[in-house]
Amino acid sequence: MVDSSKIRVVPDFPTEGIKFYDITTILNDPTEFQNVFQALLTEAKKMNPEVIIALEARGYFFAPAIALALNIPFVPVRKKGKLPFHTFQETYDLEYGQASIEIHNDAIRPHSRILLFDDVLATGGTAQAAIKLLNHFEPKDISALFYIELPALHGREKLTGVENIVSLITF
Amino acid sequence: MVDSSKIRVVPDFPTEGIKFYDITTILNDPTEFQNVFQALLTEAKKMNPEVIIALEARGYFFAPAIALALNIPFVPVRKKGKLPFHTFQETYDLEYGQASIEIHNDAIRPHSRILLFDDVLATGGTAQAAIKLLNHFEPKDISALFYIELPALHGREKLTGVENIVSLITF
Repeated sequence: MVDSSKIRVVPDFPTEGIKFYDITTILNDPTEFQNVFQALLTEAKKMNPEVIIALEARGYFFAPAIALALNIPFVPVRKKGKLPFHTFQETYDLEYGQASIEIHNDAIRPHSRILLFDDVLATGGTAQAAIKLLNHFEPKDISALFYIELPALHGREKLTGVENIVSLITF
Repeated sequence: MVDSSKIRVVPDFPTEGIKFYDITTILNDPTEFQNVFQALLTEAKKMNPEVIIALEARGYFFAPAIALALNIPFVPVRKKGKLPFHTFQETYDLEYGQASIEIHNDAIRPHSRILLFDDVLATGGTAQAAIKLLNHFEPKDISALFYIELPALHGREKLTGVENIVSLITF
């Protein structure tokens, strides 16, 4: 059983009026870290992916371990300028300004079943940009898995073309 | 057996004259990813740590999975401005300018046996700053584990007070 009360809620971070869900308290609690990992792994298995993608940086706290457990490739989507080889790039809007993310252009086999993972689905802006990156590889299908979802921000509505969207807990 | 030939060597990244060791090709190869993970886990077990720390972002590709396997806490050291709670901070020199890293100030129990993980030990500047962060917690001892070490850059010499330094492969 996943225990959402162990997530630390920090008010006014990164800016005033934002409630930040701090999962470092989960990573610091081996029993709860294991519980969350096992719950994510169970959901990931049902999606039967051929490759798992995660978003920098908090997506990396869980996705590589899921890839190892499922014996499938792990592919990092990274912030602009971090990947050394040829990349696809997407730019998206933040509250202030823009950001860009990249994926290596040889990272995924065409027509794969792709699982996208991130820790939190909030407004969905980053996940939406990531899905545009994934579409370069003409996927057979895309599923999306999140530890936490904030339904009031309607991020789910931005994930066009994603077959299956699952989150463990909502706030 | 770890196969160093599967690491992609990218010349002139991030700047001219630098050879970049791209481990995304390892993460993309489930057999080799598993081999590297198991080799790191074997070394980590010998160090008998009570907590594992990793550096943003590539350290996160392996360290959380090691923490799960050893049933110990995982603590991320992050770049400045990413951790929401109270932090310790260290600033260190880069080739151009400076960078800062942080750790939550309640993240580690005093007098712990700490394992520091990163993917690459190059000049050792980031790892050295991370060790200064760890010293706030008055550790019983610190070990350091790396996937790759570049001995020509003498990073090891900067890791003052680290009891045991192990890397899987050198270039």
